[in-house]
Amino acid sequence: MKRIAILGATGSIGQSALAVVDAHRDRLQVVALAAGENAVKCGDQIARFQPHLVGMASAVALDELQAELRRTGTRMPRLACGDDAMVAVATHPDADLVLFASSGTAGLDAVLAAIDAGKTIALANKEILVMAGRIVMERARQRGVAVLPVDSEHNAIHQCLDGRRREHVRRLVLTASGGPFRGLSTSDIARVTPDDALRHPTWRMGPKITIDSATLMNKGLEVIEARWLFDIDPARIDVVVHPQSIVHSLVEFVDGSLLAQLGATDMRLPIQYAFSYPDRWSAPFPPLDLARSGPLQFEPPDMDRFPCLALAFRSLEGDAGLPIVLNAANEVAVAAFLNGRLPFTAIAQVIRECMDGYDAEGRRPISTLSDVRRVDSQARERAAESAGRVQSRV
Amino acid sequence: MKRIAILGATGSIGQSALAVVDAHRDRLQVVALAAGENAVKCGDQIARFQPHLVGMASAVALDELQAELRRTGTRMPRLACGDDAMVAVATHPDADLVLFASSGTAGLDAVLAAIDAGKTIALANKEILVMAGRIVMERARQRGVAVLPVDSEHNAIHQCLDGRRREHVRRLVLTASGGPFRGLSTSDIARVTPDDALRHPTWRMGPKITIDSATLMNKGLEVIEARWLFDIDPARIDVVVHPQSIVHSLVEFVDGSLLAQLGATDMRLPIQYAFSYPDRWSAPFPPLDLARSGPLQFEPPDMDRFPCLALAFRSLEGDAGLPIVLNAANEVAVAAFLNGRLPFTAIAQVIRECMDGYDAEGRRPISTLSDVRRVDSQARERAAESAGRVQSRV
Repeated sequence: MKRIAILGATGSIGQSALAVVDAHRDRLQVVALAAGENAVKCGDQIARFQPHLVGMASAVALDELQAELRRTGTRMPRLACGDDAMVAVATHPDADLVLFASSGTAGLDAVLAAIDAGKTIALANKEILVMAGRIVMERARQRGVAVLPVDSEHNAIHQCLDGRRREHVRRLVLTASGGPFRGLSTSDIARVTPDDALRHPTWRMGPKITIDSATLMNKGLEVIEARWLFDIDPARIDVVVHPQSIVHSLVEFVDGSLLAQLGATDMRLPIQYAFSYPDRWSAPFPPLDLARSGPLQFEPPDMDRFPCLALAFRSLEGDAGLPIVLNAANEVAVAAFLNGRLPFTAIAQVIRECMDGYDAEGRRPISTLSDVRRVDSQARERAAESAGRVQSRV
Repeated sequence: MKRIAILGATGSIGQSALAVVDAHRDRLQVVALAAGENAVKCGDQIARFQPHLVGMASAVALDELQAELRRTGTRMPRLACGDDAMVAVATHPDADLVLFASSGTAGLDAVLAAIDAGKTIALANKEILVMAGRIVMERARQRGVAVLPVDSEHNAIHQCLDGRRREHVRRLVLTASGGPFRGLSTSDIARVTPDDALRHPTWRMGPKITIDSATLMNKGLEVIEARWLFDIDPARIDVVVHPQSIVHSLVEFVDGSLLAQLGATDMRLPIQYAFSYPDRWSAPFPPLDLARSGPLQFEPPDMDRFPCLALAFRSLEGDAGLPIVLNAANEVAVAAFLNGRLPFTAIAQVIRECMDGYDAEGRRPISTLSDVRRVDSQARERAAESAGRVQSRV
């Protein structure tokens, strides 16, 4: 029996993770959950999975959860709230594996605490590696803790690399759907509205990641994650646009041979892979029928029309804080675009201004989470100013 | 330094193998060669690679080779001819690995001798596993000898399976180009001439294998090889038509995830894989550029228009001799088609008649190479009669 703790239980990945647990009740047990504000959904999850400990993001949400549990007559687990609750869930003494499926930076302290507690880490949170990849992966190596990626691209690369020797690997090739504007001209892209962007071709996702997918920043963040997760020189990470999202990513070996992982576009598959690893369990989900799939297309990404991807590569070449700046500026700019305050093409513009400004200030070490948070908050301020300037120019 | 013996040195695979040796002179050395009748080409190979022992198929070819070596002033290696020469090359005391790249059944005794001598086997000869798969693989298992497939499809599956646990594998998926008549109707296929068939879309090959590719019998024979090579129930082997021949084959795991091997259509890649295994060496050949490849298509094979594939699957369900009958009848029927004595669609008809006839005679054990050869020669006689009958009906 593998015992699981989940941070971000009521989000999309968290719900898929609980569906995997449900399909393998003989092998998986939920011991702790952390959720944001959704007390009703969390109450339902408690009734179904009976965790020992549950953390909510705020005291208000915790009150709502208690009311919900009383209303439904559900047995009350140990309850907590705030950042300490996330750390408590991530280090629960009964947990073997902790899934980080919460978004944002709230999981940063919790992931280091879980590594120190010797837990196996299943990672579905982008910010953790984008902002603190070196710190987190160094700590995991020191403690001999496995970090298993749940994101379909990194999960695919993990499957291709598993059991292979590092010195045999030439390149990692991340596939990208190309987003909804793959076929648009530069001038059409400039006129894109939030509504245009919120229709993603293959995966259903939240608005922030949907915009990141449209700008290719999502792929840029994955390049940064891959750099740390697989400890590989960024020059050996490539991106190829593959609109069908059936080949989830590839590894090229030194002899020119490629291994690819393919599968249905179903997040339960990489989650189950992480939960079962190093074993593999039969899955109750329909497999990919390759012979009934349409043709698989591959094309190089266009970094001129989609400059965010180039900015992500650039962030890995300079100061250690640049990926943090890139990520923070992107969040601010995407929010401004979604609020109608910035045009689509200004997202990259704001990020570039912030990176240029940070670069001009000279190099600083990033060795603790405090360093990370300081660079992050300064970048957010700078991005807000930059967005204001760009807006006034439009 | 890995020391290599090659059977079938002057054929297409043999020449590619020597190109691989040439690219890795610091790692590979040729200690023995066996060739058929091409004395001039073999003489040139001796001058370039200086093997200790060379075997030719016949005394006539050996005389020609000696004359050629004298004419060019090449230092004479130890020379031999006939079946004993093949065994001597395959068991040369200095050889670590023996590549079987000769066609036909001549390599059968040699492969068992090489296994008994503890050599690593690199297999590029179809008949060995189609006719004597159980015998050869059981012997290899008993002696703890590795059999590394060089055929691009089986090589791909080997790459996908390497380091994976058997119980995690659900299916093997062999890709097939579909041959030149993939898009033709049943009535158009019936009118196909040898000239039509001898133009294969992707790989350049000899006439026999080109016809096998057009009938899909080539894929059928590969299904039989895969059954023995990977010791898997034939019901768990699938074929998918993939006209671009870029995905060389796939493995589906129990969780529905697929691993695929992709690469340029260059036989030097699987040969180098077998020579370097378990290491991988950088290859001086241009790698596949996926982003510049056209779309990759996949479709189910049509066993009605291409009944030879169905016959190959059927041969694995019945008596142990049926794959031998299938292979022998196919060789006879293809030769008759190439000579203009049989229409294209009669190839499957002759094979089916032979299999039906063999089935009607009841089950016999196939436990030695003599059993294999007896069934093979009887099937050839039966196929010749059947071809005569079909011809007289046309």
